[in-house]
Amino acid sequence: MTVNQQWLTATRPQGQPKQSDFRWNVATLADPADGQFLIRTIYISLDPTNRIWMNGTESYLPPLPLGEVMRGVGIGVVEESRNPNFAKGDIVQGFLGWQKYSLSKGDGVMKLPKLPVPLTAFFGLLGHIGLTAYFGLLDITNPKPGETLVISTAAGAVGSLVGQIGKIKGLRVVGLTGSGEKCRWIKDDLGFDAAINYKTANVPQALKEACPKGIDIYFDNVGGEILEAVLNQINLHARISVCGMISQYCADRPVPGPSNLANLIIKRAKMEGFLCSDYGPRAEEAFTQLIGWLMAGKIKYKVDVVQGLENAPNALGKLFDGSNAGKLIVQVSPE
Amino acid sequence: MTVNQQWLTATRPQGQPKQSDFRWNVATLADPADGQFLIRTIYISLDPTNRIWMNGTESYLPPLPLGEVMRGVGIGVVEESRNPNFAKGDIVQGFLGWQKYSLSKGDGVMKLPKLPVPLTAFFGLLGHIGLTAYFGLLDITNPKPGETLVISTAAGAVGSLVGQIGKIKGLRVVGLTGSGEKCRWIKDDLGFDAAINYKTANVPQALKEACPKGIDIYFDNVGGEILEAVLNQINLHARISVCGMISQYCADRPVPGPSNLANLIIKRAKMEGFLCSDYGPRAEEAFTQLIGWLMAGKIKYKVDVVQGLENAPNALGKLFDGSNAGKLIVQVSPE
Repeated sequence: MTVNQQWLTATRPQGQPKQSDFRWNVATLADPADGQFLIRTIYISLDPTNRIWMNGTESYLPPLPLGEVMRGVGIGVVEESRNPNFAKGDIVQGFLGWQKYSLSKGDGVMKLPKLPVPLTAFFGLLGHIGLTAYFGLLDITNPKPGETLVISTAAGAVGSLVGQIGKIKGLRVVGLTGSGEKCRWIKDDLGFDAAINYKTANVPQALKEACPKGIDIYFDNVGGEILEAVLNQINLHARISVCGMISQYCADRPVPGPSNLANLIIKRAKMEGFLCSDYGPRAEEAFTQLIGWLMAGKIKYKVDVVQGLENAPNALGKLFDGSNAGKLIVQVSPE
Repeated sequence: MTVNQQWLTATRPQGQPKQSDFRWNVATLADPADGQFLIRTIYISLDPTNRIWMNGTESYLPPLPLGEVMRGVGIGVVEESRNPNFAKGDIVQGFLGWQKYSLSKGDGVMKLPKLPVPLTAFFGLLGHIGLTAYFGLLDITNPKPGETLVISTAAGAVGSLVGQIGKIKGLRVVGLTGSGEKCRWIKDDLGFDAAINYKTANVPQALKEACPKGIDIYFDNVGGEILEAVLNQINLHARISVCGMISQYCADRPVPGPSNLANLIIKRAKMEGFLCSDYGPRAEEAFTQLIGWLMAGKIKYKVDVVQGLENAPNALGKLFDGSNAGKLIVQVSPE
């Protein structure tokens, strides 16, 4: 028997997620039955999409019932195994949930390959973040050298990678983010051509100055007013990769969309949504390329590691108030 | 010298276009100079996009200044020519404007081929209508047999063709239109599988009943609330061909877009705008196919011919109050 600690869903959040939307639970976990193995969670990944899961509505995953362990992608280590495919000491990734221990039969859990990168890179550079950035830019928008790429939440895990991939592909890259410090990071450290602090700038005006040749590609993580401003400045045959609409995840009523979607007609432009999970079969292509670029010093990634499972609910809020940069991760136990 | 009659733009319209937005003008036209030819307008095409042209704003064509001849696509006959490429009696099509006569050097004017169809078919079936319906459906959405296609303004010139092409391609076709009579026409005469009167129906509920397997393709001529209802019912990998947003053309302030664009992510769907003018180089492919289908009795088209140039401004309003069906044309002079 193992003593487990976990966060259960307690209420449907109103607005940004708060600690009171969760309930801390201590429970005992049986020993692994035949075919099962015990995983100790090391890291859990916090992502804007977690807020979607907390609603009681159908989305790309089934709604998460109240009173259950909060859904979350985790990295863990196998501590005990009665499953021939998983051995003690294996490092695995999957939907481990917001808890210290879990039992698995292996469904939806995969062993991580041994790579010359820290374990946190599987969240910060590879995994769902890498798939999202790599295919969301390259597959959905098919960029050509010299084009102008605009990215919202550009200092986030996905946005910061998208911008660096854009630079490798010869694009002019303009990022929107929420603080002067994050603007400096994406411009000075990551090599973006321009950075806009959307909290202080006049966004339409700043976009006009940063994109003198107009906008060919928009990698959208936010929707809302920034999408509207971008749509007013798109070029002929522009492509909008719709990765997220974080401006709407915490709204307690429907938020109207942009009033200028007709620009899609005038500019013969497209908006296309995608999910990284569809690119699982092509993961090796993305990860090989990303690791190659990392080794060659062409891309960097940043992780923001919050210590302690008990701090997960408050940490999640950082994704919605603009206070985090890079990949937000909670460390649950030692590597 | 020729006495000309024309409608000039007088004011920027508020809401639906009205006769008072135009000014009737009688002027004299000089005889053709060397290289010029005189065209007598026979028909002018009235289209929702005319309302866009009347705004003073940049769109896919330059803004139309006030006090000039209203822009319009026309079919005419050459009455006098001092241009070696155009002879008296040639039937031509181009931006002739809302006027009885015009002088041209041939720029943007093309001779119509001799085809076994009435002259009005160049507006009702071929020309910009045919290009829009054919490529807007087949090129933008790549339909597969068995998929469900929804069309707004389904009894309009474009929508009625799109639906019939959809049936030829093996789709389930559902049309939205604004009267019981138009519903009967698209269902009984054109072979749509279902028709919804959006003025009387609960649109989300009616769509659910008419599309039991969800919506794979939406051919959007209106934007607004119907787009929002459709986005709530799209299937995985749905395609939205954005042809028009007529719900917004007459608005005197920006109309918010759909609140559920994030469904593009959840359903990995795309919205793509297009303009028929981009398909000029592939016109022969579309027209050959459309005429073949017409001859084989597989498609029908309807023209709504209003007599007299003087009635053009009032006729234009029919496109915005839902009172026309088929292709709206003004006859300016006899064939």
